[in-house]
Amino acid sequence: MLTADLLRELTAIVGANWCLDAPADLMAYSFDATPLYQHLPDAVVVPGSPDEVAAIMKIAYKHRIPIVPRGQGSNLSAGTVPTQGGIVLGLNRMQALKEIDQENMTCTFEPGLVTAKLHQAVEALGLFYPPDPGSMTVSTLGGNIAECAGGLRGLKYGVTKDYIIGLEAILADGRTLKVGGKNAKDVAGYDLVKLFVGSEGTLGIITEATAKLIPLPETKRTMLALFTDLTGAARSVSRIIASRIIPATLEFLDNATIRVVEDFARIGLPVEAGALLLIQQDGPESICERDIARIASICREEGAFETRLAQNAAEEAALMTARRAALSALARKKPTTVLEDATVPRKHLAEMVEQINLIAKKYSVDICTFGHAGDGNLHPTCMCDERDQEEIHRVEMAFEEIFEAALRLGGTITGEHGVGESKAGYLEWRVGPTGIEVMKGIKSAFDPHHLLNPGKIFARETRRRVVVRR
Amino acid sequence: MLTADLLRELTAIVGANWCLDAPADLMAYSFDATPLYQHLPDAVVVPGSPDEVAAIMKIAYKHRIPIVPRGQGSNLSAGTVPTQGGIVLGLNRMQALKEIDQENMTCTFEPGLVTAKLHQAVEALGLFYPPDPGSMTVSTLGGNIAECAGGLRGLKYGVTKDYIIGLEAILADGRTLKVGGKNAKDVAGYDLVKLFVGSEGTLGIITEATAKLIPLPETKRTMLALFTDLTGAARSVSRIIASRIIPATLEFLDNATIRVVEDFARIGLPVEAGALLLIQQDGPESICERDIARIASICREEGAFETRLAQNAAEEAALMTARRAALSALARKKPTTVLEDATVPRKHLAEMVEQINLIAKKYSVDICTFGHAGDGNLHPTCMCDERDQEEIHRVEMAFEEIFEAALRLGGTITGEHGVGESKAGYLEWRVGPTGIEVMKGIKSAFDPHHLLNPGKIFARETRRRVVVRR
Repeated sequence: MLTADLLRELTAIVGANWCLDAPADLMAYSFDATPLYQHLPDAVVVPGSPDEVAAIMKIAYKHRIPIVPRGQGSNLSAGTVPTQGGIVLGLNRMQALKEIDQENMTCTFEPGLVTAKLHQAVEALGLFYPPDPGSMTVSTLGGNIAECAGGLRGLKYGVTKDYIIGLEAILADGRTLKVGGKNAKDVAGYDLVKLFVGSEGTLGIITEATAKLIPLPETKRTMLALFTDLTGAARSVSRIIASRIIPATLEFLDNATIRVVEDFARIGLPVEAGALLLIQQDGPESICERDIARIASICREEGAFETRLAQNAAEEAALMTARRAALSALARKKPTTVLEDATVPRKHLAEMVEQINLIAKKYSVDICTFGHAGDGNLHPTCMCDERDQEEIHRVEMAFEEIFEAALRLGGTITGEHGVGESKAGYLEWRVGPTGIEVMKGIKSAFDPHHLLNPGKIFARETRRRVVVRR
Repeated sequence: MLTADLLRELTAIVGANWCLDAPADLMAYSFDATPLYQHLPDAVVVPGSPDEVAAIMKIAYKHRIPIVPRGQGSNLSAGTVPTQGGIVLGLNRMQALKEIDQENMTCTFEPGLVTAKLHQAVEALGLFYPPDPGSMTVSTLGGNIAECAGGLRGLKYGVTKDYIIGLEAILADGRTLKVGGKNAKDVAGYDLVKLFVGSEGTLGIITEATAKLIPLPETKRTMLALFTDLTGAARSVSRIIASRIIPATLEFLDNATIRVVEDFARIGLPVEAGALLLIQQDGPESICERDIARIASICREEGAFETRLAQNAAEEAALMTARRAALSALARKKPTTVLEDATVPRKHLAEMVEQINLIAKKYSVDICTFGHAGDGNLHPTCMCDERDQEEIHRVEMAFEEIFEAALRLGGTITGEHGVGESKAGYLEWRVGPTGIEVMKGIKSAFDPHHLLNPGKIFARETRRRVVVRR
């Protein structure tokens, strides 16, 4: 609990409407989109400017109060759950799109801006900000930066890190750090911009960012390829890449996911298909047509029983929306949906999916798998019920084995969702004790009292099991 | 000087042929491609494996001996001059191209591999590693990573940082750190890979790297556009980008550079041209043709008195070689060539070139300017004579003003050459005292005794003037 004096100080900074400590408010900020994690903050403070953020940070620093920055809380790694209490710093008020600089092809915005709003604004000018996480209609860009969000266009266009070139951040003690800017190239010292991207709120509070933009592709074409089994789909992915075609999107859904998505979206997916690939290419029209034709013929050669080309924008939107709706569709089935993010080098895709299926069977858990096939980035998703402790234990065991399997294949424990608190116990499996020690050294250099989003990225102990908190 | 005991220990690790301390050897490693900097090391040690690097580092750590890692010494920021003595760690022996993984589109290599050799090997398989620093036929990839090298293809394809996705490094105390790998996406903790890229040997010794590759563009077209004056060239750059065309290469040479290059290369450049743009587009043939035609017409509309399309590979190679030869051509004119690396947001290109010309006039120094126009990355190059202390003083004053001008325009002190020792005194101008403090915190976390490439990036004092050492 914060003292009345402290709450008065915080209120003096942001105004009474933006410093919240009523039980209902604390409850509303006690969880995020990640299941199994919940903890009440001591207060929720919603600043309206970088100066207000700095003033709050100075108070928190002086009194050693944890600060948990938060956008929309749509992350899937418990990255914004205030598991050690303290202040949840809501950044949604700071949502200005400050500039689109067409000559330099950059845009500058505040952290609370919703991702899809930036898309709309730049695309209206013929420009393109490619990162498109599944949650883009609700997620904020500050959150995307904190997590280094990916999305459906990662294969061809990369992820959030590939676009952020300038940042303003407030450090733990309230000082302002400005790094990068609008330059296409800048090697003046360590790249603090890229270090902040994906740092999950543990190094500072992002109050402004500048992203590079690229020209909006002239056109796009979208197709579905339906397979009787997984291996044909995986072989197609390999052969598309081997023929030196990089589609903008190359998504995979397994049979279980197809069934659930069709049940939800009713877009005519054949529920008997063993797997499907959702493929989009963009670029000049002639090249799109050529690539999509080649991709379709590769898929058929590798056993696709059907390829469907979207005939118009509405059909295309339906297909893309269906894929984006996978999590929502799955979440309808059972009270608790645990979505994971195991990633392997692309060529091990089929092997990884097979491993997931074997592990699901071994632990009798219900796992659907979909994801970004071109990136080797899979989202095995378990539908369960957190009230059933025995089932949750099996789910945890299964995901532990899934992480082990991904690492055995040269993969990683998280491709785009972040470590957060939910995977902190597994980080050492991926980066080793030296990696952990080096990262902790960086963390301590920025945040000596470990006030910024404590408990995220770094676990008290490695391979700690997930525990349901109440 | 190292003791005889220490030299014996080092020799025991690498063998007598690879531990050098004869005066001629020390002299050979006392400088790099940067003028005005020279200092003898105490020894030169050339390891043949990561294990040998680790063993050397353990000895250096125990005895607190500075370590200066070095590839071919082709950097232009005094990044490899052992200005505080110690051991120059030559990494040229470790030059294996260990793997090209076609399915994952990655390659893995040792740090001493020469950049152009990697280009040849991957291009033979239809793959592409875009970063192409001017020195690529001699520079090593380890050096490219240390400096975050750019090149002529940065506008469309980015720089070294955009391609390196995995690293093995030996830390100051001899421990091995492995980060990243072949995954297209990986957000498991802080991005140590990107932190190492551009860290100029101050955080650890890179012993292996993995880069992502992309498909080799199907074809390319190269053209020259000749202008009577600078502003037409700069306006063309702006209009090309504004029309949403991103050429692979968009290089600028001023009149002074044109004269020197023509005198050197004899390829028929009109020495009366006020400025030229060298433009290359790559991709599918139809798109290349279309883009180049549009670019040519924009250049003519903006006052180009001639546009020349290379008619065959030989003509194209001649044009690209002429641009790459700019430094060599300039270096013939006077004993000392100081090549700088001021970078501004693209739209300020013309203004920056005008500033450079005004400053050159003010200090009566002889500056040619060329560079990567599309990136706003200029290389004002001063031909002088380091034996003339008074002239060198004027050169230093001029470059100090050039950095100030770049920063006033939102630019940076170095776009692709690194801070090294030559720009260390200016780093605070760019990143501010908070930026310096944060970077020093990171440095200390990796290298508490400041043994790794001491004096680079961080200056003893800000705005220290360049001093000729003898």
